[in-house]
Amino acid sequence: MIFRQFFDAESSTYTYLMASGQGREAVIIDPVREQLEHYLAAVTALELKLVKAIDTHTHADHITALGALRDRTGCVTLMGEFTKAECVSMSVREGERIDIDGVQLKALYTPGHTDESFSFVLRPERPAAVFTGDVLLIRGTGRTDFQGGDPHKSWDSIVNTLFRLPDDTLVYPAHDYKGWTASSIGEEKRHNPRLAGKDEAAYVDIMRNLNLANPKLMDVAVPANLACGKT
Amino acid sequence: MIFRQFFDAESSTYTYLMASGQGREAVIIDPVREQLEHYLAAVTALELKLVKAIDTHTHADHITALGALRDRTGCVTLMGEFTKAECVSMSVREGERIDIDGVQLKALYTPGHTDESFSFVLRPERPAAVFTGDVLLIRGTGRTDFQGGDPHKSWDSIVNTLFRLPDDTLVYPAHDYKGWTASSIGEEKRHNPRLAGKDEAAYVDIMRNLNLANPKLMDVAVPANLACGKT
Repeated sequence: MIFRQFFDAESSTYTYLMASGQGREAVIIDPVREQLEHYLAAVTALELKLVKAIDTHTHADHITALGALRDRTGCVTLMGEFTKAECVSMSVREGERIDIDGVQLKALYTPGHTDESFSFVLRPERPAAVFTGDVLLIRGTGRTDFQGGDPHKSWDSIVNTLFRLPDDTLVYPAHDYKGWTASSIGEEKRHNPRLAGKDEAAYVDIMRNLNLANPKLMDVAVPANLACGKT
Repeated sequence: MIFRQFFDAESSTYTYLMASGQGREAVIIDPVREQLEHYLAAVTALELKLVKAIDTHTHADHITALGALRDRTGCVTLMGEFTKAECVSMSVREGERIDIDGVQLKALYTPGHTDESFSFVLRPERPAAVFTGDVLLIRGTGRTDFQGGDPHKSWDSIVNTLFRLPDDTLVYPAHDYKGWTASSIGEEKRHNPRLAGKDEAAYVDIMRNLNLANPKLMDVAVPANLACGKT
């Protein structure tokens, strides 16, 4: 299997490119518009054909490359069913499978950071991996104070959905700000300071008192991303 | 196998932590002193025992964590046999194997960026991986204009040593400045702009005309690293 993780230093975003089968078809998750040429260069160098581009949710901190990738490669743009991004050409529901020539992703509805966030589980690789967007980060969780965010839903998505995956499932988030590139479900259960040893009330209290400033790109990024990055 | 890649944003350095066996023994490659607490946190979270810390070469752009890791964990500090870092407790020669409880590394002498640079091949994982330090980067190569650097030796190390590894061998460099996290030998053969379709004379000409400024930390980092980061 081909698996490549890219990092956008400006927004600290991780993007994932995967391919597995004979047909060289590839899928990309959470691409950043500014890195478009890098993704296309990688697709060319690896002799792949990009067939699907996925956003886990409507990002507020960077502009998506979904629209540009669709224009340049003809790929299908995909998000969870509750997205308001009108230009998404395929939407998926809880539990639905996405098959891309050897790469199998299962969609999990994991609201909390936004009300339309999905995670995607990579199978049948062992250990499996899950792309958690901003719901579950490495030793952190995505803020819950805008775009339909809700700390109760975040807790439920993490504890009752993501933490029911096997402990050795690798966690690949959409962001990291400290130089970590991956974690695992077991690690986050035991060592995520917002979750380990906490109950829902304590978690909600933490999330309601983060007092974060709005993302600097929010007023630009959200409308742009509802248009698939086509500003 | 446990495999974790860390990124130090200040120096754009990649560090690798690996463990595989029942004994939970781990090895780290090219650790950065400023990230020490992150590595120790990961070692603890993953329930590992760090037994070896390796530098591929004497870095000029960041201060190594080798000395601090030895102090904090009792690990063995390891470099290639030509290093002048006196505090290294174990040195390896071309072709030598380093066995760490299920993780097997083979040392390859790959001078060119410095005259004491080694690369380390991870086996028996399939595909194999090679930690190339600064000799071979993703779509680039390490500068050859100080610390015994030599563009002819760089060419020889890359073309006659690293490029003889199987094409699907993953390339994990000590740095990347564009957000790429990994490549493969086949990709670099075909797409590294300094190497693909070039001969040795053309490569040497490119390297002699890079006109790079000295690394901002060079006057601090090199003496510090010769003392294993114990400033």
